[in-house]
Amino acid sequence: MKRRALISVADKSGALELGQTLVALGWEILSSSGTAKMFRDAGVPVVEVSDLTKFPHILGGRVKTLHPLVFGGILARRDLEADVKDMQDHGIAGIDMVAVNLYPFEKTARSGAVLDALIENIDIGGVALIRAAAKNYRYVAVMTDPADYAPVLEELKAEGDVTLETRRRLALRAFDATARYDATIGDGLRRELGEKPGEDSVTLSLVRTQELRYGENPHQRAGVYLPPLADSPVTQLAGKELSYNNLLDLDAAMRATAMLQSDVGAVVIKHTTPCGMAIGKTVAEAYDRAFACDSLSAFGGVVGVTRHIDLETAGAISKHFTEVLLCPSIDDAALKLLTEKRKNLRVMTWKGGRVFDKQMVSTWCGLLMQDDELAPLPDQKKGHWIGAPRPDLWDDLVLAWKVAAVSKSNAVAMVKDGEAVGIGMGFCSRVFAVEFAARQAGERGQGAVMASDAFFPFPDGVEKAAAAGIAAIIQPGGSVRDEEVAARAQELGVSMFISGHRTFRH
Amino acid sequence: MKRRALISVADKSGALELGQTLVALGWEILSSSGTAKMFRDAGVPVVEVSDLTKFPHILGGRVKTLHPLVFGGILARRDLEADVKDMQDHGIAGIDMVAVNLYPFEKTARSGAVLDALIENIDIGGVALIRAAAKNYRYVAVMTDPADYAPVLEELKAEGDVTLETRRRLALRAFDATARYDATIGDGLRRELGEKPGEDSVTLSLVRTQELRYGENPHQRAGVYLPPLADSPVTQLAGKELSYNNLLDLDAAMRATAMLQSDVGAVVIKHTTPCGMAIGKTVAEAYDRAFACDSLSAFGGVVGVTRHIDLETAGAISKHFTEVLLCPSIDDAALKLLTEKRKNLRVMTWKGGRVFDKQMVSTWCGLLMQDDELAPLPDQKKGHWIGAPRPDLWDDLVLAWKVAAVSKSNAVAMVKDGEAVGIGMGFCSRVFAVEFAARQAGERGQGAVMASDAFFPFPDGVEKAAAAGIAAIIQPGGSVRDEEVAARAQELGVSMFISGHRTFRH
Repeated sequence: MKRRALISVADKSGALELGQTLVALGWEILSSSGTAKMFRDAGVPVVEVSDLTKFPHILGGRVKTLHPLVFGGILARRDLEADVKDMQDHGIAGIDMVAVNLYPFEKTARSGAVLDALIENIDIGGVALIRAAAKNYRYVAVMTDPADYAPVLEELKAEGDVTLETRRRLALRAFDATARYDATIGDGLRRELGEKPGEDSVTLSLVRTQELRYGENPHQRAGVYLPPLADSPVTQLAGKELSYNNLLDLDAAMRATAMLQSDVGAVVIKHTTPCGMAIGKTVAEAYDRAFACDSLSAFGGVVGVTRHIDLETAGAISKHFTEVLLCPSIDDAALKLLTEKRKNLRVMTWKGGRVFDKQMVSTWCGLLMQDDELAPLPDQKKGHWIGAPRPDLWDDLVLAWKVAAVSKSNAVAMVKDGEAVGIGMGFCSRVFAVEFAARQAGERGQGAVMASDAFFPFPDGVEKAAAAGIAAIIQPGGSVRDEEVAARAQELGVSMFISGHRTFRH
Repeated sequence: MKRRALISVADKSGALELGQTLVALGWEILSSSGTAKMFRDAGVPVVEVSDLTKFPHILGGRVKTLHPLVFGGILARRDLEADVKDMQDHGIAGIDMVAVNLYPFEKTARSGAVLDALIENIDIGGVALIRAAAKNYRYVAVMTDPADYAPVLEELKAEGDVTLETRRRLALRAFDATARYDATIGDGLRRELGEKPGEDSVTLSLVRTQELRYGENPHQRAGVYLPPLADSPVTQLAGKELSYNNLLDLDAAMRATAMLQSDVGAVVIKHTTPCGMAIGKTVAEAYDRAFACDSLSAFGGVVGVTRHIDLETAGAISKHFTEVLLCPSIDDAALKLLTEKRKNLRVMTWKGGRVFDKQMVSTWCGLLMQDDELAPLPDQKKGHWIGAPRPDLWDDLVLAWKVAAVSKSNAVAMVKDGEAVGIGMGFCSRVFAVEFAARQAGERGQGAVMASDAFFPFPDGVEKAAAAGIAAIIQPGGSVRDEEVAARAQELGVSMFISGHRTFRH
């Protein structure tokens, strides 16, 4: 019996050769509209779907292949007596191969098309053909990607048939393609209509945009994945490819600079947490001050700044070994200086924006998804003072609060005159975090302020801060021992502002 | 003109009432097989799809609705002259509502059905109807969930029509449903066929299994999401619901106990990193020793143990405030004691297993995905000693290595006699981590061993370790200063094992 292939492709690449080879192997080609015309023009014999179904294409091409004579040919189980009888009774000939690729919804959405064009590029018939062929993979080979043609034709020539194993693999890829297609349609229509996705279930289509050398460690393979309609918000101007750990640190630098956005500010990230963060009159000054907080740790860090990089700033940054530099923009001369002095330095620009609205992290018990917003800023009108209010220290308190918010929990940050002087982060106990920050601050702790990313469970953290010379503390409050902690702060002459907002970051 | 609804549902709940109400409102019902029979039996007038198409159901129901007279009715643009002419020429009547839900692939896959049953439960016609109606939402209302019926009927009664806004919302949910359906089919077939998913693109369907009170912080809404075919590997026997931060810590406890699996071991997690970890002759002993490492931090921690919990262990654990207890199993009497003394304690059992093969974390530049495997164990045959080999300390070195591997980077762990005595983690510089661990260890550092999760960039960390009394160090090596570091260790009489494997964890 003559084998038949239905070929209907939006992307015509490789399709003519596919048809020619199949015909040479004795197959019959079934096709429609543009694809059929391509074959006819090239002298390849082809049967029009509408000739098979005796039903013309209608609705401007919206309905072409959706017909029982087509779907019967794809879906029939060739070894089931009842199906064979149905085929005979209704004159259905089996279709053994389906090569279909879909209306380019993704490309259309990316081109900024209006809603009407998006809707017209939602493929109905093609998806149904692909899904039917994939369902019936025991008898039918389904190809959704021109890259499939060559190996399938090779197999056909060598084995006389497409093997079951190949048909199964193609079917799995077909369902991947249709799942991705519909997830992208949902995403594209929502973007166009300004609608938010639901939260009770989520289908996330992700495309690998970068294959990384390895993950967090060399034994882990890894990649960067983006939704089909999303773009990375950063641009790389110089340096080697980002590594997995660079990307984690870059994320922390983006969050920190977003938090510092209202100021001329700089941050140095090491192991996903700041080891220095400061504001300044110039970017160069902010950088120098951020670097000074813990110059030992700052070696090989990821640096982020909130303003344009000029030659002076580039000079300051080029003095030290830095892995990644994140900035909104950079002078040509500054970039030249940096790339000459530090040829591996990855220079990234970022004008704002990010890929996801939600923060996602997989655990062994499931994926945790949460709103990914910067922590709310402290507000003197909404929080309250314990002890003498210190509006004179407010700016430093807010900066300390920002530093603690982007640092790994448990975190405390000591700030003096617009500059972090000690950051304690990643500790299992708050009091250890205070001790570490105080040690870093040394003499600079005198008259400085401190922020804590969560409440003090006991007065010990406040006592250590007072001993380090801290004049005022900002913290969310909320402990069962809040009163005891507040009383101790007052005894020690440390002013305290209760912000009401916890800012854990793990 | 009479309005028409196509109703074809696998899940019949609410469908009869839907049909009855529509008929009462003057609609015509179009239906097939089981759904049509239900209407006829209840005396609701219904037109069989096969009467409309003059084509019978074939292939055991595989092809029922896939016909141009059906799809033309759904897809026609009622205000486009050419489409209206096509409708007139071919006797196509418009279909204004499509209520379809799909063959229950997910339920079938979950019931442990064999491949044949899975394949039969891949819906082809239903998906095509839903997608066609969703594409043409400007004219057609599509319902994929019985929960949609009541509000749509309300609107129909109140407004005389389903509003465009509702049709648009329903269409977006329809594409969510079909994307999820195909992602689940891919997942289900892969599980049955033992195939791994591709890595160049991934479509992840996720269902919220728990709506959390809030996320990492109260200002963040959050939930736990699992693929439709996955189950949580843990079972909760007692206590309040897990919070977001509990889940992060539970994940760390699962990783730590998986790492300790070959021993009777225990870990205490705080802020996603161990503050104590030990092995023992009994679980109770292991717990007491893990708790002792940093009893200040262990307050309110997440405890994991590798063996069954008996009454003695429960007695030990109940002495302290613990948020979550993870164990493979627990005696009834032990559970009773714990829940009586600590009524909020969340008791979780885990027999192994996890939801994802990949570890995923979203950054502002995209989702990072990497192999989620435990770090490879150090091996005396594969690594090498610098200085005098210390096989007598090997067991402690391996334990230290495990503790460092599950601790937040930069991490070092000091271990003596099967018990962590000092853990420095989350630091921006390795030397600070050593200092902190040494301070925790105090006198117990004498003759202890130390593991580092990455190489020493300078000899200072080794010097601090030697000063703390450390007899042997295990570390991956790989620094440009490896020789300098090794020479310094030899000078100081500290043996060193180079494992070759880095174990960062951020």
